[in-house]
Amino acid sequence: MKISEIAEFINGKLVGAGDVEIFRVAALETARANEISFLEKTEFAEQAARTKAACVFVPENFDAPVPYPFIRVVNPKLAFAQIAEKLHPFNWRTENNHKTAVIDSPLEDILANFIGAFVTIGKNCIVGEGAQILSGARIGNNVSIGKNSIVQANCVIYDDVSIGHDCVIHAGTVIGTDGFGFVRDGERGYVKFPQIGTVVIEDDVEIGANSCIDRGALGETRIGAGTKIDNLVQIAHNVRIGKRVVIAAQTGISGSTVIEDDCVIGGQVGMGDHAVVKSGAIIGSQAGVLPGKIVRAGVWWGTPVQPLDEYKRQNAHLKGIGRLKEEVKELKKQAADSAEKNQS
Amino acid sequence: MKISEIAEFINGKLVGAGDVEIFRVAALETARANEISFLEKTEFAEQAARTKAACVFVPENFDAPVPYPFIRVVNPKLAFAQIAEKLHPFNWRTENNHKTAVIDSPLEDILANFIGAFVTIGKNCIVGEGAQILSGARIGNNVSIGKNSIVQANCVIYDDVSIGHDCVIHAGTVIGTDGFGFVRDGERGYVKFPQIGTVVIEDDVEIGANSCIDRGALGETRIGAGTKIDNLVQIAHNVRIGKRVVIAAQTGISGSTVIEDDCVIGGQVGMGDHAVVKSGAIIGSQAGVLPGKIVRAGVWWGTPVQPLDEYKRQNAHLKGIGRLKEEVKELKKQAADSAEKNQS
Amino acid sequence: MKISEIAEFINGKLVGAGDVEIFRVAALETARANEISFLEKTEFAEQAARTKAACVFVPENFDAPVPYPFIRVVNPKLAFAQIAEKLHPFNWRTENNHKTAVIDSPLEDILANFIGAFVTIGKNCIVGEGAQILSGARIGNNVSIGKNSIVQANCVIYDDVSIGHDCVIHAGTVIGTDGFGFVRDGERGYVKFPQIGTVVIEDDVEIGANSCIDRGALGETRIGAGTKIDNLVQIAHNVRIGKRVVIAAQTGISGSTVIEDDCVIGGQVGMGDHAVVKSGAIIGSQAGVLPGKIVRAGVWWGTPVQPLDEYKRQNAHLKGIGRLKEEVKELKKQAADSAEKNQS
Repeated sequence: MKISEIAEFINGKLVGAGDVEIFRVAALETARANEISFLEKTEFAEQAARTKAACVFVPENFDAPVPYPFIRVVNPKLAFAQIAEKLHPFNWRTENNHKTAVIDSPLEDILANFIGAFVTIGKNCIVGEGAQILSGARIGNNVSIGKNSIVQANCVIYDDVSIGHDCVIHAGTVIGTDGFGFVRDGERGYVKFPQIGTVVIEDDVEIGANSCIDRGALGETRIGAGTKIDNLVQIAHNVRIGKRVVIAAQTGISGSTVIEDDCVIGGQVGMGDHAVVKSGAIIGSQAGVLPGKIVRAGVWWGTPVQPLDEYKRQNAHLKGIGRLKEEVKELKKQAADSAEKNQS
Repeated sequence: MKISEIAEFINGKLVGAGDVEIFRVAALETARANEISFLEKTEFAEQAARTKAACVFVPENFDAPVPYPFIRVVNPKLAFAQIAEKLHPFNWRTENNHKTAVIDSPLEDILANFIGAFVTIGKNCIVGEGAQILSGARIGNNVSIGKNSIVQANCVIYDDVSIGHDCVIHAGTVIGTDGFGFVRDGERGYVKFPQIGTVVIEDDVEIGANSCIDRGALGETRIGAGTKIDNLVQIAHNVRIGKRVVIAAQTGISGSTVIEDDCVIGGQVGMGDHAVVKSGAIIGSQAGVLPGKIVRAGVWWGTPVQPLDEYKRQNAHLKGIGRLKEEVKELKKQAADSAEKNQS
Repeated sequence: MKISEIAEFINGKLVGAGDVEIFRVAALETARANEISFLEKTEFAEQAARTKAACVFVPENFDAPVPYPFIRVVNPKLAFAQIAEKLHPFNWRTENNHKTAVIDSPLEDILANFIGAFVTIGKNCIVGEGAQILSGARIGNNVSIGKNSIVQANCVIYDDVSIGHDCVIHAGTVIGTDGFGFVRDGERGYVKFPQIGTVVIEDDVEIGANSCIDRGALGETRIGAGTKIDNLVQIAHNVRIGKRVVIAAQTGISGSTVIEDDCVIGGQVGMGDHAVVKSGAIIGSQAGVLPGKIVRAGVWWGTPVQPLDEYKRQNAHLKGIGRLKEEVKELKKQAADSAEKNQS
């Protein structure tokens, strides 16, 4: 794409020549000829002065004298991400269905534009146009995968799972495994509570590598449209996650918990079962949410979670305990002295 | 199964007609014709009034006027789980050994009733009758897998591991990988301590998806009969886990730690090495057990773990620090005032 | 190897006969004929008295009358580990490249001495001499793997990743997956920030099972030579880890964080983004490092991390709050009594 085409595509205001061809995005420090970069804030303009990028997305109030064309936009980082999607599309494998795959569904239902080597697809599956199933992925029976979705290498999708359009499931992730529910039968041990529900992944969801999403026990586990989940995340049976939720790595969410739209959950967070995280809540990394807890909108921290303000105040109090102890010691001494004086 | 057959199988007392055929289990809210459900406690009877289930397991003291047959049992949830096992058996793949598998053991030792596509089985392995090895699973050399056990898709079982009867190993789980032990060799870095032991999984064990169980360094790592382990759990070398232990997701257990029979361990718990968790202990989620710690029977919480009562008392104290600080401030002011008064 | 050869190889001082052949290493308690063991400290000599090992590595000051030959060395555990590497080499699969593998790179660039069944290798890859790629491993395009490195079963190596010599990547681990970076686009949700960098794993690195290492967003993620990483560890985009670092299981490291040489990181540690852990730091299990934090050399503990001494002092203070509360109560009572007395 030429610089002028990029400016038009992104709806920004080009200052300088627009005829150079751009092949890649790059960071300001490493960008070279034919690469475009971005300056997040005008205050960082010194970085922009030194770059060798062919063109830079800049904030609307940027006005430094630089020797290269730039494009003024409302949100330079967003513009950069949007143009990166155009310049670096996912490397669609263009070969036809690989001859080593074992597909037990009617081929007219498997419209994917790439099926990798050694893929297995069970019975009664539907795979949409433009989808890619990479090598070694396992697709059970009665699975549907939407248009343009990518199931990366060695993923395992159990029976009856539904995945929407434009999703990305990274390598090694397991969707639809049995939930963890057992009923104690006295001395004899545990009987499995039935885990016969499903998982529904809505459109435009991305799930990192080696994560696990359990099927509903009797109902469904659901991940809302536009939600992004990192690596090694655990989502238990019957969890419902809303739209545009972000969940960082190694977080675990117990059974039947609900996370409403537009929440942001840090890494290594643990949530007990039947909790409700209300729309707009932000939960810091390593926090712990007790079973049944309702977490309102706002920023939360710690175990058990408390509002960030309270957490900070509490932490300051804790830091002060040593001094408090000294003060009490001093008061006791004074009281003893004064009692002695009174007696004498 | 007819309702009357179910009542007999479960040894419950049927009230109402027993001739309707039951095909599935379902929750009270979603159950329809030909489905059976359960009412956990008589107090929740309102739920039972509205259900459209064909039949409901109820507590023994249940006596509400409902328009459908019900079965009185000691533990309705257990009865429900037991009948679910009958109505929803694991979907045994019925095809013969798949022709794409690569099996280096004598076929007379591989009695499994299903071997999925692209499975690999090494030398000197034994797989019992009724077992299923799903597609893409990797079985090393000298591995034994008992009767009716299921090794799900893309699991990796390293050499020399022994798995008992009636086990379920979910997708992506790795058993028998090297323990994490190294000896520092001065400036030159680390030399691996030998990790040449084994893993023994006893009968009726279930292990979730993407979990890891390390082989013993010199001896064995052992998981006792009837134990249930969730997804993304880490079990280090030489750990010994007793019978009927439950371990929730993302918990990690360091080397040589012992967990005795009938313990319940929450999610995201971390245990240091050489700890001992005595039979009957319950450890709350996100707790931390220090190396070498002995955890007695009872309920434990927090990092480092303390008895739940102490944890709660301590937490209440912590909440009160702000007030304590105010009180000390006030006392200091009083003491200063009184000192001033005495001087004047 | 004969005992005398072992003593020479390890540069130790043999006391006793050196002609017995040693086949295996073993623990003192379980060792039998033709096995060698080690005594870590002279104080534990009672263990050494009872062993049935054919030979034992002992500390240099060991001088007990035992009925078997022993070898005095500076560090018996290290000697044991070093000889175990000789006696128990990784079980190199000796077959030729397996005929079921799908290799899209020129075969003259794939020098590995073993390629397992159903392996896939993309375009433009290089695999060094003596390397082994076990069954079901997925190697993307433009990947290089050094000499004598082992990529275990069902690993997934994404495009453009570089792995050095003598590395071990355990089963199910994913290297080069997309980093977790998104830019919010108002109501419409998230646009992916480009994740088009690489991962470089230097020589002699070991990575446990089911771990995840993200590619750099624009630059690289790098793991230094001699570093050892356990199972289920998460390493985010653009992280730089130095040489000879040890990271225990289930730890997660956020984007752009730097861990310098010779650090030791416990299990279940969480690190925020852009933190710096200086060379020689030791961080205890379950600790939390805040984003941007600089952690100096020394031992650190807790969330947020503090020097171990401070952590212990603080913890002692916390334990004492209940008493402190009692003391303040008593002081208030005294003050009230004394005020009353003064008034009367």
